[in-house]
Amino acid sequence: MPELRQNMATKEWVILADERAKRPDEYIEPQTHVSTESQPPYENHCPFCPGNEEIDLEIERMPPSDVWLTRVVHNKFPALSIEGKLKRTFDGVHRRISGVGHHEIVVDHPQHNTTLALMTPTEIKSMLETFYSRGWGIRKDSRIEQIIYFKNHRERAGASLRHPHSQIIGLPVVPTDIRHRIEEARRYFDDNGECVFCVMMSDELSKKERLVAESEHFVAFVLYAAPSPFHTWIIPRQHSVSFLYSQPDEMADLAYLMRDVVRRLYIGLHDPAYNLIIRSAPVKEISNDYLHWYVTIIPRLSRTAGFELGSGMYINPSLPEESAAFLRQVEI
Amino acid sequence: MPELRQNMATKEWVILADERAKRPDEYIEPQTHVSTESQPPYENHCPFCPGNEEIDLEIERMPPSDVWLTRVVHNKFPALSIEGKLKRTFDGVHRRISGVGHHEIVVDHPQHNTTLALMTPTEIKSMLETFYSRGWGIRKDSRIEQIIYFKNHRERAGASLRHPHSQIIGLPVVPTDIRHRIEEARRYFDDNGECVFCVMMSDELSKKERLVAESEHFVAFVLYAAPSPFHTWIIPRQHSVSFLYSQPDEMADLAYLMRDVVRRLYIGLHDPAYNLIIRSAPVKEISNDYLHWYVTIIPRLSRTAGFELGSGMYINPSLPEESAAFLRQVEI
Repeated sequence: MPELRQNMATKEWVILADERAKRPDEYIEPQTHVSTESQPPYENHCPFCPGNEEIDLEIERMPPSDVWLTRVVHNKFPALSIEGKLKRTFDGVHRRISGVGHHEIVVDHPQHNTTLALMTPTEIKSMLETFYSRGWGIRKDSRIEQIIYFKNHRERAGASLRHPHSQIIGLPVVPTDIRHRIEEARRYFDDNGECVFCVMMSDELSKKERLVAESEHFVAFVLYAAPSPFHTWIIPRQHSVSFLYSQPDEMADLAYLMRDVVRRLYIGLHDPAYNLIIRSAPVKEISNDYLHWYVTIIPRLSRTAGFELGSGMYINPSLPEESAAFLRQVEI
Repeated sequence: MPELRQNMATKEWVILADERAKRPDEYIEPQTHVSTESQPPYENHCPFCPGNEEIDLEIERMPPSDVWLTRVVHNKFPALSIEGKLKRTFDGVHRRISGVGHHEIVVDHPQHNTTLALMTPTEIKSMLETFYSRGWGIRKDSRIEQIIYFKNHRERAGASLRHPHSQIIGLPVVPTDIRHRIEEARRYFDDNGECVFCVMMSDELSKKERLVAESEHFVAFVLYAAPSPFHTWIIPRQHSVSFLYSQPDEMADLAYLMRDVVRRLYIGLHDPAYNLIIRSAPVKEISNDYLHWYVTIIPRLSRTAGFELGSGMYINPSLPEESAAFLRQVEI
C-alpha cells in the first residue's frame, strides 16, 4: 500500500509509491557511467585547472599564493549583475526588480578529477571556509536579502563543467518558496513552542532507522518524507538560523560529516549526480527560535515530470528507511 | 542587465538572465533528435497500440467499440491505490495518510507515432472529453481532494512510453503548493476585488507582446514571469474555478487552441519534450471569485539544478516577449 508522508517543517506531502518501489541497490549507476576519478587530473581547456586561471574574474583564493587550495571567481555568465541600483517597478500588473546580485563560482579544489567524496576533510573545510568568507562578503551588500550556496555534481544535476566547483548566488529578494518555509516553521513554533527542525532531528536520533551518520556537532539522516531517493539532510545539533554563525570547530566537523555522507553515495551508488545546498535564513534574520540551517544532499536519480510540476508534490519510488540502511552499511 | 519578474498570481520571482540568454531559434532541437512522426505507426510491444490492449486494466473507451479513439486504463504501477480506507496518522512528529487515490492513463490516440501537434481538433476534443468524463468519475470518490491532469511528452519530460498518452491522478490531499497558490489568489482578490488571472489575461490581450494565439473562449500567452523558455498558459476568457465546469463548445474551442500552440512548438522547435498540465481548483471548491483554471505547457529545454532546488526560483535564459514573437511567426 502506498503512503503519503508529510514533511513537518515544510508541510509538503510526498507519495511513497510501493508498487513502483526499487530496492536501494537498483539505484547503483551502470558500468557505462564514467566516474569522476577516471577523468584526467588536469584538462588543457578547463578554466578552473591551475595554469588556466582568468585572473580578472578572480575574487579571492585560499591560501593567497600561486599554489591555491580553493579559488572564488565571478561567474563569466552571471545570472545577476553586481553593478546597478536596486530598482523596483510596479505598474499595477507587473512587478519587476533590476537583476542586481552576486553570482560567484567556488573552485573547490585544484585537481580536475576529484570531488567532495575524494577530497580530504581538511580540503572540504577549506571549501566551507570559502563559502563562509564569501557569505560574509556578500552579506555586506545591503541590496542582498538571501544567499543560496549550492553545488551541482555532474551533468544530470546541472553541472556544465566537470572540474569540482560550487556556486554562491546573492539575491535581492527572499524567494517565495523560502518565505513559505519560514511561515510554516514559525507556525510550528507558535503551536508547539519548539523549533520544528530540532524536533525532527531529535526524533531521528532516537529512532535511528533513517540515520546515515552523526558527529559531534551534526546529524545526517534520510528525510522521513524524502521527495526523492536518498534525499539527505545534515543538520547542526545546535539551534542556529544561519551557516554564517558557525564556529570553526563546527566547520571542521561539518567537513568531516559531509565527506562521510557523499563518500557513502560515491562508493555505494557509483558516483551519482547530486545537488548539495546550504539552506540558511535570509541574511537580515540574525536570530530567532524557529529557523534552523542545514545542508541538503539530493541525488538526481529520478525525473520530475508533469505530476510534480502540476502539484508541487513528489512521487518517491524508494523507502527512506531502506535508503538509510543501505547508506549505513557502505564501507567508506 | 538581468531582471527579476514576479508572477502576480503565485508571487514567484524569476530571474531573466540576459548574459546567458539564447535567441528563440537556439532552442530548436538538433537533427539527431528523433521526431514523433518518424516512429513506426504501430509497435508490437506497445501496451497502448490497438490489438495489445490489456482488457482487465481498462476503465473506459470512446467510442465503446473495437475501433476506439481514446482509452482509459488503470496505471499498471499506480502511485496510489484505489482500494483502502483513508487513514490519517499523527504521532506528534510524523503525519501520514494511507496512499489511496486514483492513477489513470489516458491513451490519447490509437496511433503510436502521433502526438497532440499531429492530431486533429476532433481527436484532441475526444481526449479532453475523456479527461472531463474521468474527472467527474474520480470526483465522485469522497476521499479525493485534488485531481491533476497532465501529459509528459517525450523522455526528457518524464515519459517512459512513446505512444501518446496522458495521466490523471486523484489525490487524497490538497498539495501544499496548490494551497499556497490559492492563498495568494485570494489575497489578491481581497486587495483588489478582481481575479488575478482575469487581470493577467486582459493585460496580455491589450499588450499583445506575449500573446501566442487566441480563440473565441481561450487566450494563449507566454508568461510575463516565465520560469523557463516558452512557458505558456492557455486560459479561458470566462472566469471559472475548474475545467470540470467547461461547456461543450468551450471544449471544442480548447482542442482547437491547444493544437495551435503545440503545433507551433512542434514545427518551430522540432518536436521538443514538454509537460502539459490542467490546473484546476481542489474538487470541493465549486465556485469562487479568485481561482481560475488554465492549461500550462512547459517545454523541457533547460535543466533544474541546485539553485532552483534551493530557492524555488528559476533562472530563465530566454526573453518571454521574444519566445512569443517566435511562436507567433511559426506557420502552422
